[in-house]
Amino acid sequence: MALLPEPIEKLIHAFERLPGIGPKTASRLTFFLLSAQPDVSADLGEALLKIKSATGTCSECFNITSAEREKCEICSNTERTGNLLCVVEEPLDVIALERTSGFAGRYHVLQGALSPIEGIGPDDLRINELEVRVRDGNVQEVIVATNPSMEGDATALYIRHRLKNYQVKLTRLARGLPVGGALEYADQGTLLRALSGRQEL
Amino acid sequence: MALLPEPIEKLIHAFERLPGIGPKTASRLTFFLLSAQPDVSADLGEALLKIKSATGTCSECFNITSAEREKCEICSNTERTGNLLCVVEEPLDVIALERTSGFAGRYHVLQGALSPIEGIGPDDLRINELEVRVRDGNVQEVIVATNPSMEGDATALYIRHRLKNYQVKLTRLARGLPVGGALEYADQGTLLRALSGRQEL
Repeated sequence: MALLPEPIEKLIHAFERLPGIGPKTASRLTFFLLSAQPDVSADLGEALLKIKSATGTCSECFNITSAEREKCEICSNTERTGNLLCVVEEPLDVIALERTSGFAGRYHVLQGALSPIEGIGPDDLRINELEVRVRDGNVQEVIVATNPSMEGDATALYIRHRLKNYQVKLTRLARGLPVGGALEYADQGTLLRALSGRQEL
Repeated sequence: MALLPEPIEKLIHAFERLPGIGPKTASRLTFFLLSAQPDVSADLGEALLKIKSATGTCSECFNITSAEREKCEICSNTERTGNLLCVVEEPLDVIALERTSGFAGRYHVLQGALSPIEGIGPDDLRINELEVRVRDGNVQEVIVATNPSMEGDATALYIRHRLKNYQVKLTRLARGLPVGGALEYADQGTLLRALSGRQEL
């Protein structure tokens, strides 16, 4: 016997397809929506149905942008220098960096990182497009801001290999202790990097 | 400067209104959907838009049911005895009890529990309807299966008070150590209940 009416089962299954949401959370969210104000589910439903058609990819940096724009807000901003390119894996990384207000250049979103396990090779990423930007543009420095993970490091090394014939400075984000963190909780790898990258006081 | 296109901001805000989903999880879910197959967001969106109109409340037990049915599947099932009523707080409790396959009676969903702090009084719950069912139906036993919490206990006591003039047996779910649990991790209250409710070997 089906314990739940079909529309409820459907909503639970649809929630379960999201990352980090298991069967229990999916039921909890569904039953929350059943007793919540109708606009909570309606707003979410409408936003979800619009999201794919209302968004597009910037033709220059491959960040996410509104569907009606060809270039994103950052690439269209003439005050931001195109001499400095920051290469990131995902659009969320752009947001994280923008929140710091510490970067005045432009971005290049790879849309992922190299991962042989997941079958993601150089052609699945926007690395060819990065090379074209470096070759044709007036880029002086490329900051490789891929994640400090195995995949991010592999991607950074591969980018260095691909850009080695161009007159461009390549840098990588610093590694060390996170600000506000405690030394005793730092993992070995981080601590080793903090030691080897130590700076004069 | 808005960092994100409006449709994305909207989806993030809509996710944030769900319980247990903060700004970080909301962004993560949104960006997952942006790179996922379009049907993931479309299915979820459609299920959400339907959920309110496609579901209703059983006229007898106040459990959730399909909009086109007046009574839920359990209340329409003539094989289940109406002599035995199990009173629960929420529809999810019905599912939990049904999964045990240990209950052959019918349910009564209160749609909450008494909570003076949240301003929920007896008239906000389906207690009047419970009294009517006990008075007019052929109910022999009412199992009060509200949560073993302060609110659930208060609700159980109030139900006892309301039903005291009817010829009906009132019971409450047993409390004690959870099956598979360890004594050393049990809290004081549970252990006290397990002691006082000890049964012969």
